Amino acid sequence: MKVTRYKKEDNVTYALGATVVMEYLNNRPDLVAGVILHPKFSSEETIGKINTICKDKNIALETEEKPFNILSQKENCFVIGVIKKQKAEVKPGNHVVLVNPSNAGNMGTIMRSCAGFGITDIAVVPPAVDHFDPKTVRASMGASARVNIEVFETFDDYRSRFPDNNIYPFMLDGSTLLQDTDINEPFSLVFGNEATGLPSEYSKIGQPVRIEHTSNIDSLNLPIAASIALYASTKKIFSKKA
Amino acid sequence: MKVTRYKKEDNVTYALGATVVMEYLNNRPDLVAGVILHPKFSSEETIGKINTICKDKNIALETEEKPFNILSQKENCFVIGVIKKQKAEVKPGNHVVLVNPSNAGNMGTIMRSCAGFGITDIAVVPPAVDHFDPKTVRASMGASARVNIEVFETFDDYRSRFPDNNIYPFMLDGSTLLQDTDINEPFSLVFGNEATGLPSEYSKIGQPVRIEHTSNIDSLNLPIAASIALYASTKKIFSKKA
Repeated sequence: MKVTRYKKEDNVTYALGATVVMEYLNNRPDLVAGVILHPKFSSEETIGKINTICKDKNIALETEEKPFNILSQKENCFVIGVIKKQKAEVKPGNHVVLVNPSNAGNMGTIMRSCAGFGITDIAVVPPAVDHFDPKTVRASMGASARVNIEVFETFDDYRSRFPDNNIYPFMLDGSTLLQDTDINEPFSLVFGNEATGLPSEYSKIGQPVRIEHTSNIDSLNLPIAASIALYASTKKIFSKKA
Repeated sequence: MKVTRYKKEDNVTYALGATVVMEYLNNRPDLVAGVILHPKFSSEETIGKINTICKDKNIALETEEKPFNILSQKENCFVIGVIKKQKAEVKPGNHVVLVNPSNAGNMGTIMRSCAGFGITDIAVVPPAVDHFDPKTVRASMGASARVNIEVFETFDDYRSRFPDNNIYPFMLDGSTLLQDTDINEPFSLVFGNEATGLPSEYSKIGQPVRIEHTSNIDSLNLPIAASIALYASTKKIFSKKA
């Protein structure tokens, strides 16, 4: 299988590592164009599972070392999945909205938390990091196979598609504390760039929320803030189910 | 200033990047053995601040390119701080306890969240990643200058030093949901290894807690789980203050 160093314009991206590849094979085999095993990969159980699914779904499977030299850096990576990129659509319901996210790993970690808290739809407002980047896919631990990511031209475009969503911009100077805010469904939890946060005009949209922290730090790490917001917004849902 | 690629046995570690170095200069100048500026660093304001503190505290300051080639990889790094390693002691109060943490970046992100939620004491039970690793220092965004990290030989050693702390091990099968658990001070929030979590015997210690998530993911990322726990455990404290 021919692989090349990933570029944003490519039609495929890469899932690096057995865990991530298995997530795609189990949940979105339709997106898997092929699987490559490292000649030194020795986990019989995983190889067996991969074999079965690839045969069943007619997915190309090869054992070859060279793609690993091209695609994977330092990490212990013994399985590569070649993943077709497919445009997705944000569906009505609860959303996370990322305005100008700039870090691939952070975006993947947010996908993982979203999948964990049952939020499957993420809207992105550019400029933004490429959500298909293999670093994003890897940081998501394969949760990228479970979420719908749609890039909107502007935040207003997003809003006009979901006019009934309650908007909660998370800002350092948000007017209510998260623990004192009722997050009502359907909700949109909105987060800004890692370094600069949301532009100040978001303080006039919906109910701006702040996660209080000491002055010992400038801000919380973005996936941390988003995950705390996800936890606080969905804990009622989980308790209802329990 | 002579710098070498970081090794665990060294007496010094490195703060990479202006933000991280400024945290040390502002909060722990006693730990700063020297500061190195990149010849291309052009932020007059930051250079001015660094100059003033270094002169005032008698800290060596040099402009030299070579150390950057040795110590910093891809990142945009224009300032290096040479930081003396100093043993710290966990003080009585609320703690985070990390059992077998294995990832340097994760440990730094946890330090940042701890500083953010006012928890300044972190106990570590080995085997564990080196908490002085420059990757940890950088991921903490300099919060490493604000927290006390102490490595205990065993969890029992930790416990016998703080017999009055209420122990909350965070486990996938913890018997109570975080949102239904009263976290009473002084508390110890205990987290296991990234891949394997806490050993099962921790389910017999204190009140095991779980952060409920869907079956769409195996687990939450470790710093995410720790930060959600920190948020939930300290939000009363913040509301009281507010």
